[in-house]
Amino acid sequence: MSSTETPVHVLILAGGAGTRFWPASRAARPKQLLPLLGGEPLITATARRVLPLCGGAGSAGWERIWIATGQHLVAPTRAALPGVSERRLLVEPAPRNTAPCIGWAAATIAREDPEAVVVVLPSDHHIADVPRFLEVLEAAVASARGGAITTIGIRPTHPETGFGYIEADGAGSAAPAAPGAPATPRRVLRFVEKPSRERAEEFVASGRFLWNAGMFIFRAGDMRAAIRAHLPALAEGLDEIDRAAARGAAAEADAVLRVFPRLPAVSVDHGVMEHVAGLAVVPGDFGWSDLGSWQSAWELAEKDERGNSAPAGSVLVDAQGNHVVDLRARPAPDDRRVIALVGVEGLVVVETDDALLIVPRDRAQDVKRVVDELKARGQGRHT
Amino acid sequence: MSSTETPVHVLILAGGAGTRFWPASRAARPKQLLPLLGGEPLITATARRVLPLCGGAGSAGWERIWIATGQHLVAPTRAALPGVSERRLLVEPAPRNTAPCIGWAAATIAREDPEAVVVVLPSDHHIADVPRFLEVLEAAVASARGGAITTIGIRPTHPETGFGYIEADGAGSAAPAAPGAPATPRRVLRFVEKPSRERAEEFVASGRFLWNAGMFIFRAGDMRAAIRAHLPALAEGLDEIDRAAARGAAAEADAVLRVFPRLPAVSVDHGVMEHVAGLAVVPGDFGWSDLGSWQSAWELAEKDERGNSAPAGSVLVDAQGNHVVDLRARPAPDDRRVIALVGVEGLVVVETDDALLIVPRDRAQDVKRVVDELKARGQGRHT
Repeated sequence: MSSTETPVHVLILAGGAGTRFWPASRAARPKQLLPLLGGEPLITATARRVLPLCGGAGSAGWERIWIATGQHLVAPTRAALPGVSERRLLVEPAPRNTAPCIGWAAATIAREDPEAVVVVLPSDHHIADVPRFLEVLEAAVASARGGAITTIGIRPTHPETGFGYIEADGAGSAAPAAPGAPATPRRVLRFVEKPSRERAEEFVASGRFLWNAGMFIFRAGDMRAAIRAHLPALAEGLDEIDRAAARGAAAEADAVLRVFPRLPAVSVDHGVMEHVAGLAVVPGDFGWSDLGSWQSAWELAEKDERGNSAPAGSVLVDAQGNHVVDLRARPAPDDRRVIALVGVEGLVVVETDDALLIVPRDRAQDVKRVVDELKARGQGRHT
Repeated sequence: MSSTETPVHVLILAGGAGTRFWPASRAARPKQLLPLLGGEPLITATARRVLPLCGGAGSAGWERIWIATGQHLVAPTRAALPGVSERRLLVEPAPRNTAPCIGWAAATIAREDPEAVVVVLPSDHHIADVPRFLEVLEAAVASARGGAITTIGIRPTHPETGFGYIEADGAGSAAPAAPGAPATPRRVLRFVEKPSRERAEEFVASGRFLWNAGMFIFRAGDMRAAIRAHLPALAEGLDEIDRAAARGAAAEADAVLRVFPRLPAVSVDHGVMEHVAGLAVVPGDFGWSDLGSWQSAWELAEKDERGNSAPAGSVLVDAQGNHVVDLRARPAPDDRRVIALVGVEGLVVVETDDALLIVPRDRAQDVKRVVDELKARGQGRHT
């Protein structure tokens, strides 16, 4: 894979907080910074995965990885991504949803090269088939080079009500691709917000609807133009940052601090995508998961023959289908703690240094009720 | 309560190990040293409970409390019982079951006063109704003063197969006593080992059988005589210790080290009680529990309106009937860890600094399988 034409930059959106992986995830340690599938943090895997697209695993590739995050996450994010250059770290002075952040990145990259293609990716998703993922992104990059703001649509596996949908033009758009078939962009008919169960079932049955996974690919200049057309207040703010940048880095930093918090807080989906004509979508079938809960972490984890995912050394007696995660600090390997499960089934068990969670896998979505309760008690340090 | 005649000494048997309260109980921290019902260790409660019987809560009472334990438990046992005098600590050089240990205590006390009454108690049981317990013991002490080796029989509440039984003479021996009725000794017909389910049901139905709770009351001299009659090898060993004691404390200590490991390893039940004529039993109905598993710990624990017993500060969402025990060391109160249970029912959850156990309450007896597994793995430090 290579970029024979304009360079490809990747912008990883890493500002999110979330409660669904409590107690592993915290305000100061959101999901993308966790090694939820063992090994490296999700954001590290996200960046590493796309290096071939933006110049290879050497410094040339890392130089085209941009990270947008909040001030409170700068230190752990840099620790998770030592290859990312400091000047590629876009630190949002205030959370303003995705449109200002993507616009800011597009403007910054456009100052270097308005023809440069930008690939926007969430930081905390799982991709099973990385080669296919890169093929799909290559097709999307080619589409973007042709002038179309392009998105990736995930072929739905079930009538999920937790995602937005994208309706693609042409019957069979969302049908599984034949093995080895090239990834082909389709015209987008519309973006649809999270639907009811009934509508979701209709969408899946229609064969034309894909899941919106929050991946967007465009030329930097095209996104600026789209923002100018549909979010003029945002465009003006970005112009102000542009003018300051012409006076130097210090003036630019000042302008960001001053301008960013006043930018309209709107998602790129609502603010831009829903209004742009000529959008393209490349259907993707690369084993995608948004890792939405401990249940999906268990689904993706390595498991023993009885369906248990547990740290080495755990004692499992008549236990099945459990997901055990131990994120406690350990002084030394020979000082390991023993986790013993006897006669239990389908539990999620998560230990951190200051919390223990036990919840049935099929109630993993109720973890947020614990976070709510802790906040209500004033125990914010645990959330 | 007072002893108007001979003094009463209490011997607390505290040598036991056990696996049923893993991971709280360990070889170096057996059940009697744990605060299983909150507050103080079980052995501390056991000693405090009988102080009125042997001289009151002052030093006179503590001076008549004897503890038999193993060398490896001396330090934590003394920490749990700062009131017990060092010379009342009988440190067994090797575990030889209960007959040698009780015989040694009887011989030692008999050298001070052969008429002294000795009350032998397990260290790790729970008594709900302490005033009634003391009434029953007073009746047993009176019986022992009359020359009968006496035991306490617990009125059975169900056909338990895990206890030995004592058959008492006379119909209705095991019937519940009328409120306020005096505790009355009965003649023992026989001791019976742990029965089958069918026999246990017959025993309970008969109204004559009581549970053997391992409590024995006798004059020191009477026990020595019974041992001489039924365990001559033990009697000879005790004579040797006696002769050494006449030469001073150092000689006595040497003799114990030399003699004790060779004494016959037999229980006082098998070796003495089953053979002695004229035994008496006082039926007891004072809310007794041997605290045999996490299930019984839950039964006796304070619980919220949904049947949960959990540390203050736990977050319980749709959880019921759970027993949560946190025995981890904490640096400071404001550094407490949060334990959160969501949507789970009937679980036992136990945390220590180096282990976590999760088991359904109704499988609490399977905890020993974890200990077996850890031993098989060579992880003896966790057992």
